Amino acid sequence: MKILVTGFDPFGGEKINPAIEAVKRLPDEIAGNQIIKLEVPTIFYQSAEVVKKAIEKENPEMVINVGQAGGRSAITPERIAINFQAGSTPDNSGKGPKEGKIQADGLDGYFTQLPIKKMVTAIRHAGLPAQVSNSAGTYVCNHLFYEIQYLIHHDYPNLKAGFIHIPYLPSQAKNGRYPSMSLDNMVTGLTAAIETAAMC
Amino acid sequence: MKILVTGFDPFGGEKINPAIEAVKRLPDEIAGNQIIKLEVPTIFYQSAEVVKKAIEKENPEMVINVGQAGGRSAITPERIAINFQAGSTPDNSGKGPKEGKIQADGLDGYFTQLPIKKMVTAIRHAGLPAQVSNSAGTYVCNHLFYEIQYLIHHDYPNLKAGFIHIPYLPSQAKNGRYPSMSLDNMVTGLTAAIETAAMC
Amino acid sequence: MKILVTGFDPFGGEKINPAIEAVKRLPDEIAGNQIIKLEVPTIFYQSAEVVKKAIEKENPEMVINVGQAGGRSAITPERIAINFQAGSTPDNSGKGPKEGKIQADGLDGYFTQLPIKKMVTAIRHAGLPAQVSNSAGTYVCNHLFYEIQYLIHHDYPNLKAGFIHIPYLPSQAKNGRYPSMSLDNMVTGLTAAIETAAMC
Amino acid sequence: MKILVTGFDPFGGEKINPAIEAVKRLPDEIAGNQIIKLEVPTIFYQSAEVVKKAIEKENPEMVINVGQAGGRSAITPERIAINFQAGSTPDNSGKGPKEGKIQADGLDGYFTQLPIKKMVTAIRHAGLPAQVSNSAGTYVCNHLFYEIQYLIHHDYPNLKAGFIHIPYLPSQAKNGRYPSMSLDNMVTGLTAAIETAAMC
Repeated sequence: MKILVTGFDPFGGEKINPAIEAVKRLPDEIAGNQIIKLEVPTIFYQSAEVVKKAIEKENPEMVINVGQAGGRSAITPERIAINFQAGSTPDNSGKGPKEGKIQADGLDGYFTQLPIKKMVTAIRHAGLPAQVSNSAGTYVCNHLFYEIQYLIHHDYPNLKAGFIHIPYLPSQAKNGRYPSMSLDNMVTGLTAAIETAAMC
Repeated sequence: MKILVTGFDPFGGEKINPAIEAVKRLPDEIAGNQIIKLEVPTIFYQSAEVVKKAIEKENPEMVINVGQAGGRSAITPERIAINFQAGSTPDNSGKGPKEGKIQADGLDGYFTQLPIKKMVTAIRHAGLPAQVSNSAGTYVCNHLFYEIQYLIHHDYPNLKAGFIHIPYLPSQAKNGRYPSMSLDNMVTGLTAAIETAAMC
Repeated sequence: MKILVTGFDPFGGEKINPAIEAVKRLPDEIAGNQIIKLEVPTIFYQSAEVVKKAIEKENPEMVINVGQAGGRSAITPERIAINFQAGSTPDNSGKGPKEGKIQADGLDGYFTQLPIKKMVTAIRHAGLPAQVSNSAGTYVCNHLFYEIQYLIHHDYPNLKAGFIHIPYLPSQAKNGRYPSMSLDNMVTGLTAAIETAAMC
Repeated sequence: MKILVTGFDPFGGEKINPAIEAVKRLPDEIAGNQIIKLEVPTIFYQSAEVVKKAIEKENPEMVINVGQAGGRSAITPERIAINFQAGSTPDNSGKGPKEGKIQADGLDGYFTQLPIKKMVTAIRHAGLPAQVSNSAGTYVCNHLFYEIQYLIHHDYPNLKAGFIHIPYLPSQAKNGRYPSMSLDNMVTGLTAAIETAAMC
C-alpha cells in the first residue's frame, strides 16, 4: 500500500514542529507499505491544497496527517473531522480563519476511515501513551482533516484518511508546565499506528 | 567529588520504577566526579538506613536521591524536606507510615544544600523540561530526603544532599492520562543536574 | 416559546446529579418562554425514549438536555453530537453500551441548532465560567444528544435542540481534586444560556 | 478567643481579590470567637508590617491569613511557611521580590500551629472541596505566612497562626480554563475552618 503521511511546519512562534520532525524520521517503508512524506504549511486552505496535489500526483491508498496538540500527554488518533473553523491566532499566512463552515455544502462531521482504536492499542503495545481523541479542535489541524474527508466523500471514495495529534517535544516544554514526548518515541508510536492502519 | 546517587525500587503495583532505572543508566563518572549508584527500598525508615550505611561506607561529598512523582511533566529538584509523614498507601513493607513527625526533635523543614535553580537551568539547557519543586510530598520520598538532611545537620555538616523527582516513564502512562518522560531523557536530565550540582 | 429542558438522574455511584438538581431549580418561565422540566434516566436508548415521548406530548420548539461532565471547570454548550457510543462503565440499567454506531443509517455527526457561542457569552456576562465544547464524549450524554438530533433530521425539521454539560457540584468534589460549581451558579448560568438560545 | 483574619487586596491586574471579599463577609463572631477582619496590601514586607501592627493593637490569640491561589480547586490550609521568596511578577508596589531568604536568621521552614487536617475535614463536612497544601509558594502569600511565624517564634510564643489559600471566584475564571468557587461557598468553608481551628 502507498501511504501519504504529512506533517505541519513550525507555527505560532515555535521554531520547530514535532509533526514534520517526526514524519521526516519515519522509515520509507513500514511493513511493506511505501511511505510518502510531505511537509504542509500551517495555513488554512493552503495546507489542504498542498495535500490534494500530492494525492493527485501520488495516488496513495491512505493519507495520514500529523499535527501537534500542545498540552496533550499522548499520541491521539482523531475520530471525527468537523465542518467548522475558528481561532483568533493567525496561521502562517498571518491571518486567522474566517469563523464558520469549512465547506458550505459539507456534512457536519466525517468519521475517519482509519481503525483508530486498534491504532491506539498498537501504540500502547509499543510502550507509549495513546488515546482516541473525539475532537481535533477547530483550527488548521481539523481544517485539513475535514478537507481531506470532504475530498474523499466527493472524489476519492476508496481513499482512507485520518489525523494523528502528537504532544509537544521536550524542548518545547522546558518550563515544565506541559507534558511532552521525545521525538524517538513519537516516531516509534507513529510507525506502530501506521503499520496497524495499513493492515485493516 | 564522590557523589552517591540513589533510586527507589518499584512500588505500589508498578513493575518498574524510573528512579532506579535512570540511576542505573547514569555514567560512572560525570565531569570528573565519581558516581556511586544505590538502589533503595520504597520503605519508610528502611530506605534511610540503607542510604546512611552507604554514606558511612563510601563517605561521599554529595548525596542525591531520585524518586518518581507520577503526574509531573518535568524533572523537579526539591527545595525543602519537611518533618512530616502521612499517606494511606502501604509502602513495600506492606504498611503505611504512622502519620506525624519523622524526627521528634527535628526542625520543621530543611532546605537542600544543592543549587536547585542552577540545576533546573542546566536541565533546560539540555533541552528537557525542569522546574524547582517546593514540595516533595509527605510519603517515602520526602521521608528519605528529610532523614538525610537530619543526618547532615547532626552528624555530617559538610555533606551536601538533595532530592530530584522524575515523571512517569511512557510505559507507565500508556492510557494517556498522565505526562511521561523517556528513560533516555531522564538520564540526560539527571546527568546535567548532577554535573551542575557538583560544580557549585 | 415552549422549551423542554431535561436533566439526568444520579449515576455511577453518585447520590446526586447536578444536571437534574439544576434543571429542577430553573424558573418555570424564562424571558416569556415556558420551561418544561423533565428528569431522564441515565440509560442508553431509554433516556432518548423518555425525551421523545415528552416531545410528542409537549410539542416544544426547543429541547435542551443537561448532563454532568465531571472534571470540567465551566458550563459547556456542546457543538456536535456524534454517531458513536462506547464506555466500560455500566449505565443505570447495569449494562455498558454496545460499542459502535448509535443509528446505523445516521450521519457521522450533527451540529446543534443552538447559538452556542452566544450562549457562552451570555453565561460569561452573568459572571460565570463557560466554554464551547467540541466533544460531548461517547457515553449517555452524547447518545441522548445524538438521538434527538437524529429525530430532528428525520421527523421534526423545525425543532431546535442542544446539549449543555455542567461541572461537578462542590459536594461531589470534596477531596479537592476536581473543579466544581455551586448549584446556584449552575442555575444562573443555565438560565442565561436558555434565555439567549430562545432569542435566536 | 479573639481571631485576626486577614485578606489580600486585588493584585496582578485583577479587579477583585476573593481573599478580602470572603474575609469581609465572615460573621463578626464564629462559635463565640470574636473575628477581627483586616485588609492587607499585596506587597512584600509591607503586608507583614500591617499584620504585625494589628497583632500589637488587637492582641489576638490566633491569626489566619487568607490569600488566592488561582488554579486550585479547593480551600487549602497550608502546612508550612518557608524562608524563601521569589517571583518575576511585580507586587502592588510595582516591584518583584528580591530572590532569597526572607529572614537571614530564620529557620528554613515553620509549621503552622493550626489543626489543618481537622480544618480540611470540617470544610468537607460543610460540603465543600478542601485539601491540605504542602506549599504556599514563594510569593507574597508565603512571605506573609513566614513573617508571622517568625514573629511567633521570636516574640509571641503563645500566638497561633496559619494561612488558607482559596480558589479563583467564578467571575475571575469566565474563560473556563481554571477552577473556581463561589463567594458564598468560600465564606462557608472559611467559617467552618475557623470554627474548628478555634476549638483546638
